[in-house]
Amino acid sequence: MENQRTEIASLGEFGLIDHLTRNFEIQNASTIVAVGDDAAVIDHFGKQTVITTDLLLEGVHFDLMYTPLKHLGYKSVIVNLSDVYAMNATPTQITVSIGITNRFSVEALNEFYEGLYAACEKYGVDLVGGDTSTSHKGFVISVTAIGEVAPEKFVRRSTAQKGDLICVSGDLGAAFLGLTLLEREKKIYLENPQVQPDLENEDYIVGRMLKPEARRDTVKFLADNEIIPTSMMDVSDGLSSEILHICKQSNLGCKLYEEKLPIAEQSRKAAFKFGLDPTVCALNGGEDYELIFTMKQEDYDKITLNEKISVIGYMTDISEGTKFITKAGNTFDITAQGWNAFEQH
Amino acid sequence: MENQRTEIASLGEFGLIDHLTRNFEIQNASTIVAVGDDAAVIDHFGKQTVITTDLLLEGVHFDLMYTPLKHLGYKSVIVNLSDVYAMNATPTQITVSIGITNRFSVEALNEFYEGLYAACEKYGVDLVGGDTSTSHKGFVISVTAIGEVAPEKFVRRSTAQKGDLICVSGDLGAAFLGLTLLEREKKIYLENPQVQPDLENEDYIVGRMLKPEARRDTVKFLADNEIIPTSMMDVSDGLSSEILHICKQSNLGCKLYEEKLPIAEQSRKAAFKFGLDPTVCALNGGEDYELIFTMKQEDYDKITLNEKISVIGYMTDISEGTKFITKAGNTFDITAQGWNAFEQH
Repeated sequence: MENQRTEIASLGEFGLIDHLTRNFEIQNASTIVAVGDDAAVIDHFGKQTVITTDLLLEGVHFDLMYTPLKHLGYKSVIVNLSDVYAMNATPTQITVSIGITNRFSVEALNEFYEGLYAACEKYGVDLVGGDTSTSHKGFVISVTAIGEVAPEKFVRRSTAQKGDLICVSGDLGAAFLGLTLLEREKKIYLENPQVQPDLENEDYIVGRMLKPEARRDTVKFLADNEIIPTSMMDVSDGLSSEILHICKQSNLGCKLYEEKLPIAEQSRKAAFKFGLDPTVCALNGGEDYELIFTMKQEDYDKITLNEKISVIGYMTDISEGTKFITKAGNTFDITAQGWNAFEQH
Repeated sequence: MENQRTEIASLGEFGLIDHLTRNFEIQNASTIVAVGDDAAVIDHFGKQTVITTDLLLEGVHFDLMYTPLKHLGYKSVIVNLSDVYAMNATPTQITVSIGITNRFSVEALNEFYEGLYAACEKYGVDLVGGDTSTSHKGFVISVTAIGEVAPEKFVRRSTAQKGDLICVSGDLGAAFLGLTLLEREKKIYLENPQVQPDLENEDYIVGRMLKPEARRDTVKFLADNEIIPTSMMDVSDGLSSEILHICKQSNLGCKLYEEKLPIAEQSRKAAFKFGLDPTVCALNGGEDYELIFTMKQEDYDKITLNEKISVIGYMTDISEGTKFITKAGNTFDITAQGWNAFEQH
């Protein structure tokens, strides 16, 4: 049937999405932002809502060997809420579709839903629909989240300005280190089931991996302090990958400083234990669900007292490239070493 | 970890959803209709939108051996639009998430998206987001559709009244017969790959299975003729299953008449060829994506000239049960023989 075969890996996930959506024309005036941001924006008679969706597949996005179902339910909601907050919006509703094999009991599903409801309750969102199917292989989870945003207050990736400060919430790299630890313990267990997993003193990094939170507090802080970010997205694939999205879509360059990267003490220790460079973990590790945003320099004074927001660099002209400056003063090009599911598996 | 194991099949799909959502309380005033209808209804500052989602899994919901990818893309959109129309709303946006194995080439995905875009164009909806992942096993498709509805004009399943006429659009059973034919030809082919599939003269039933349409015309007709259905849903699991939902949720009984069931001539012929009862196919076959709705008796004159709407019975008091009256005058209880994915597989 086909004369040509192009491998999907040759395009990468983002290349693939660009390719598949390149010729599509918007038909509804209500569609304000379509494919290509954390979430879409829809106009409802002058008010705006955002919508975002994520698909989670067993063996690709999660491993049931070390992921409790309750945590998985919680995280499935969080990853979508994070995208809503990344638009500077407030999540209000979700739909959840699942595909399950018959190895799941009702009790197991109850645990998954407990986690899901816990996230809904904490973040004030309603579960409003979904679909339940049998799956022949593996657990499939699809979550869609809807949110509200005051008219024209949504924040895109493409609107950063030259000279803007680049900020990031919380700390980076912990989820990747948590994953590294869990994968290591799984391997040890598979080789020798008598050995008990050693997760002692690693609560922080394991927690960041298995039960992340979405940065509602950062969005609230920005609103309370009348800071409107000039661009924003969430850190799901890794800081390098995300800042490159902002630069590309805003048609700008950037300078990031190693000494400014927020890395938790627990993450530094864990990286040292695993023989990894904490900076590389912070730059390229995924699933932190922190927010990266840009803001005008004059807003700097407003954030200095917030310990959960770090200024890590600034936006430059596109001709200056996307640069990372190490503590030793060396300059490197930033490359997207983010989690590319098509290359990893 | 678990002391008790309850098999999911023991609850069935609808029982499972009831079970999992039983304790969930709505937190947002904007959530007007949550789980339990064709779509959710969300209030946006006095205006209303609907949202619905479907998960389609290879080997459960479709078989790539006889489903062209372009048709699959088209159908993936249609099944969601059908749920939006079933709320008496107009679809406006969709999101599409897919999980794909590396046996798919970019060209194959192009075909899928061609079908998807064809449906978007025909029905005037915009693709506004999604997610693309690798899948270790099988093609996974999750579509969410958003629609608009004038304030308080959405139609639920739970609002039928005693004495209301039960109507259905188009004709029933064709998709099930198309599936039966495709499964038969697949079996013959697997046993003897030299034999070419014989789909001759069966365009209608095969088309109804592989490339269904959503009933936009019915919703438009109702609006043009100022008929507000008292309840409505789409026929995806089978007429028996759907009318039982309406009866249960409206707390009523019903009488359906065999002689009134709309069955296409092509479907009757195909049923005869396969040794099946066309009435059973119409009652229990799924995936027709017609609309079943109830309306006040005084609206009857408005629909008599519409050949695409059939009156098949009426709603009764709950004490009269849910009854099916055959051409021979015998009365049977209606049972949900609809497609229950948990029992079938």
